[in-house]
Amino acid sequence: MRINKEEIEQLEKRYRTTFINSLAGFRQAVLVGTRSKQGVTNLAIFNSLIHLGAHPAFFGLISRPDSVPRHTLQNIIDTGVYTLNFIKADQYKQAHQTSARYDEGISEFDQVGFTPLYLPGFSAPFAEEAVVKIAMKFEENIPVKINGTSLIVGSITQVDIPDELVLDDGFVNLTAADVLISQGLDAYFTANEKGRLPYAKP
Amino acid sequence: MRINKEEIEQLEKRYRTTFINSLAGFRQAVLVGTRSKQGVTNLAIFNSLIHLGAHPAFFGLISRPDSVPRHTLQNIIDTGVYTLNFIKADQYKQAHQTSARYDEGISEFDQVGFTPLYLPGFSAPFAEEAVVKIAMKFEENIPVKINGTSLIVGSITQVDIPDELVLDDGFVNLTAADVLISQGLDAYFTANEKGRLPYAKP
Repeated sequence: MRINKEEIEQLEKRYRTTFINSLAGFRQAVLVGTRSKQGVTNLAIFNSLIHLGAHPAFFGLISRPDSVPRHTLQNIIDTGVYTLNFIKADQYKQAHQTSARYDEGISEFDQVGFTPLYLPGFSAPFAEEAVVKIAMKFEENIPVKINGTSLIVGSITQVDIPDELVLDDGFVNLTAADVLISQGLDAYFTANEKGRLPYAKP
Repeated sequence: MRINKEEIEQLEKRYRTTFINSLAGFRQAVLVGTRSKQGVTNLAIFNSLIHLGAHPAFFGLISRPDSVPRHTLQNIIDTGVYTLNFIKADQYKQAHQTSARYDEGISEFDQVGFTPLYLPGFSAPFAEEAVVKIAMKFEENIPVKINGTSLIVGSITQVDIPDELVLDDGFVNLTAADVLISQGLDAYFTANEKGRLPYAKP
């Protein structure tokens, strides 16, 4: 199938959304934990985690247009902190369920069945069940004016991860913990390792 | 292991780079094809493909600081077009080899063993071997000032994909073609499907 821009624009809306979202390929599934100014916890699945730099350590997330309420983005801006949680693939149904549009006063932790966990001196909730827990400090919200999305930039303030997942050279062996991968808005996967390769030289 | 920001900053440089890059999780491996103003083709592996919107269809890529020459970014800005190529996992060694720092006048297509393919009216080269081929038009380079990276925003102008990979609802079945996934700077994977789920409702 060869399809051009004009033909893509004429696709039926749901078909196009599914096609373009899934065309972007495989990505890390991450549960973003926040707390509102009023103290309501929020947990939402994102598939747009981006590595921006290792020194200092910065990660990004894409937030969609704010034509509908975006509790996660608002909480991040209001409180300045959030958590990134990677879960085991077996919990993909609960993870997906966090994408439902719950009202602002309702916590996805309660509705979906993850347990809020707090670390000393950090107000955003982690999911206790997560294999990898990352505490983030909000740095900047960069608008992508062309379509009203934005790039949320944050710095890593703490990482909590089982010792056995960190290899001798620092590599985080997510495959060993069967960490959840996503594609598009509704498809979930685990990874099979092909291999690691040495630094490439010409 | 629980490690905080100050401890991360004190890690040995290579260990830290490996740790933070791999901590960002699984992502789509994509070969970005470009051609310089002088006509030299370039093919480079990226792991930062981002879905920005479906209507219109926009994808992003993160480009690292330009303290070293970035042929891909320069070619995109100079010519306004580029290609995104997803390959089968079996070609992960060739894909990884495109990350070597070849001189500006040298084409990774020749060095690594992918075949340049051109579509009518589009000057950037595809990799003929790619399962999914996406033609992109450069829209905007958004600086991430905090660390000198940037978000390259492009619009999809054409998609070329085998019919059998596009399901009835528009979902692109990348697993069926064993499309390559990456983690960190040197680890490669394929995906095992856990399942697709219906739209989540409260």
